[in-house]
Amino acid sequence: MAKKRNIIVGQSGGPTSVINSSLAGVYKNAVERGFDKVYGMLHGIQGLLDEQYIDLSTQIHSELDIELLKRTPSAFLGSCRYKLPADLDSEVYPAIFDNFREMNIGYFLYVGGNDSMDTVDKLSRYAEKIGSDVKFIGIPKTIDNDLVLTDHTPGFGSAAKYVASTVREIVLDASVYQQRSVTIVEIMGRHAGWLTAASRLARKYEGDNPCLIYLPETPFSLEQFYNDLDAAFKKSPNLVVCASEGIADEGGTFVCEYSDAAKLDSFGHKMLTGCGEVLESFVRDKFGVKVRSIELNVNQRCSGMMVSETDIEEAAMAGAAGVKAVLAGETKKMIAFKRDSDMPYKMHCTPEDVSLICNQEKKFPKEWINAAGNDITDDFSAYALPLIQGEPKRVMENGVPKYLYRK
Amino acid sequence: MAKKRNIIVGQSGGPTSVINSSLAGVYKNAVERGFDKVYGMLHGIQGLLDEQYIDLSTQIHSELDIELLKRTPSAFLGSCRYKLPADLDSEVYPAIFDNFREMNIGYFLYVGGNDSMDTVDKLSRYAEKIGSDVKFIGIPKTIDNDLVLTDHTPGFGSAAKYVASTVREIVLDASVYQQRSVTIVEIMGRHAGWLTAASRLARKYEGDNPCLIYLPETPFSLEQFYNDLDAAFKKSPNLVVCASEGIADEGGTFVCEYSDAAKLDSFGHKMLTGCGEVLESFVRDKFGVKVRSIELNVNQRCSGMMVSETDIEEAAMAGAAGVKAVLAGETKKMIAFKRDSDMPYKMHCTPEDVSLICNQEKKFPKEWINAAGNDITDDFSAYALPLIQGEPKRVMENGVPKYLYRK
Repeated sequence: MAKKRNIIVGQSGGPTSVINSSLAGVYKNAVERGFDKVYGMLHGIQGLLDEQYIDLSTQIHSELDIELLKRTPSAFLGSCRYKLPADLDSEVYPAIFDNFREMNIGYFLYVGGNDSMDTVDKLSRYAEKIGSDVKFIGIPKTIDNDLVLTDHTPGFGSAAKYVASTVREIVLDASVYQQRSVTIVEIMGRHAGWLTAASRLARKYEGDNPCLIYLPETPFSLEQFYNDLDAAFKKSPNLVVCASEGIADEGGTFVCEYSDAAKLDSFGHKMLTGCGEVLESFVRDKFGVKVRSIELNVNQRCSGMMVSETDIEEAAMAGAAGVKAVLAGETKKMIAFKRDSDMPYKMHCTPEDVSLICNQEKKFPKEWINAAGNDITDDFSAYALPLIQGEPKRVMENGVPKYLYRK
Repeated sequence: MAKKRNIIVGQSGGPTSVINSSLAGVYKNAVERGFDKVYGMLHGIQGLLDEQYIDLSTQIHSELDIELLKRTPSAFLGSCRYKLPADLDSEVYPAIFDNFREMNIGYFLYVGGNDSMDTVDKLSRYAEKIGSDVKFIGIPKTIDNDLVLTDHTPGFGSAAKYVASTVREIVLDASVYQQRSVTIVEIMGRHAGWLTAASRLARKYEGDNPCLIYLPETPFSLEQFYNDLDAAFKKSPNLVVCASEGIADEGGTFVCEYSDAAKLDSFGHKMLTGCGEVLESFVRDKFGVKVRSIELNVNQRCSGMMVSETDIEEAAMAGAAGVKAVLAGETKKMIAFKRDSDMPYKMHCTPEDVSLICNQEKKFPKEWINAAGNDITDDFSAYALPLIQGEPKRVMENGVPKYLYRK
């Protein structure tokens, strides 16, 4: 009998709060199913090309470690932003498959977003081409929630919970003075507004802040912005506005590009500005009120302190489903989430053709944006609320979060 | 028998995570001691001048409300940044004391920082001058931890915990790629480096990130910064640097002012830049590596999700001590914290002369900064660690934090 083939798992793209939950799900399930070796590639496919990998059993020693890994944000194995060549005749492919043979790899799991699904697609196609029986499955991961053929993506729920919670606290902070003020919160999302939409969940009642929400899916105009603020000031002195980093005008110019012409740093370089800073300047200029902009920055994707237990468990489930799928002979697939119902919330995993997923982008639905293009409808709340539920147990050491690190 | 005098409490200055814990401590203790009316001035002394105040019993209806208030960040009563006139003959003073008489106020508690202690000092002195028997006590509050005559200030522990936890997660996020990178974290603190020093608590072992920490107490030089980074790159490819917003060079120029000359927005206005952005440009220019700057912004002072239970309880204790002090006839005092021991951590409250506290600033001790001026010593950790301990129970609703709001 041939020696049982090994399994390898990698992480790719930007970190999230739960990409390690998927890794934990893969590891736990692979061990339970009797794999001898569960390898982790370091820094994704790029690291694997340099033969950078580890035996995960050298890192994970107990059930407690698995639980800690599930709750550790960022990418335990390291990540990369490496796109495989479009040309399947490139010498990169035989190099990768040589490594597979040397390591006796039969199963390949890759946790990531759009670009990572492109990697899964290309490797699957190359395997087909050369008649290799290595199986390739993608595990979705992105805070952007922009993958097609899946109800949502692991990582989104926790990022959405971070955004909703943090914006709720910013609203509190922004409301203490009597003077009129505008606070602009810039939220991640270059092309899709899913995460910015989550700021809607911070609102406690109709008319509460954030009073205006702008997504990249609607053309942004400074004139409308002015009118929106003007109207909002008639109702409240303290306004909180949430905007996706990628809002752009009708002509397709990003708002964050508006100031590039004039903005040089003291070293003579153009400085990158966020749309928040541009809007801040605009408000100061037009309204003369107290104004500040806040960029939520990387913590919205890598906080381990404000994560959704639902998200953690689903990410782990996706990892386990990936192991199950490759063992069932599936390849060239991504584990997708299908929602069975909103209330009570129920979902299940199913593999979908990865070639239909990679290089696609699921925009925020137009019908969940109000007619004025400055708010989100209740339908989104019904969709998103189940995804931010549940408080995971936090493991602390000396007053700060304890996480699992690669040794 | 004369009708029993009422008590009034106000909040002033920037919001913190636990300024409401002090308010809760005042309210609970005042009710227990039999006060008929516990008033809250809205927007501090400025609001009181306009007769804006509430009876707190209309807002707080149960023990549960008190607990929720203790865990609600920002300023429940609203705040102000209003400095009373230096001239005690100003007409402002009789106006305030007229309000006291109308409301039958005998006791005045004011929760705030430096400027708020100045308010307590001036009102006490005016009372002395006119022979009023109203008692005035300050309750300390500031994330800056810069009040003298107290071991630390309520608000600092929670902000320090937020900074340490968040920086630990930023370090994880900053370490996933193989390419060399620098991440600059800008932390609040215009003149005192206490909060930035708390980033030291994020470090897991000697040599771990954050590898460089700069406070306003040491003159900053771009040349040394260059050399520091150059040396650090010899040990690690991914560097995380923490800097106080107020770092300044030997000549006293703030680093954040370096770029003002060249930085205009598209509306022709000078843009305010943080020191993080200036350092980011410098690193890009000199090292050509991937670099980004992160401003922790208001969440470091107003998060209710990453607070220290020790801080919450001490803030409430300070509020209670304030009630006790005024009833004991104390006035012109601030409730200070005295530390009895580090391990086990023990402290107690004691009133100190507010005139010696207001308008002073407690800098970060030079002996807790290393010789090179780019790191914090272990003595600070021993001081700060007790202040960030303890995880308060979080109250959630629909996946986001539930707080108490003024109705």
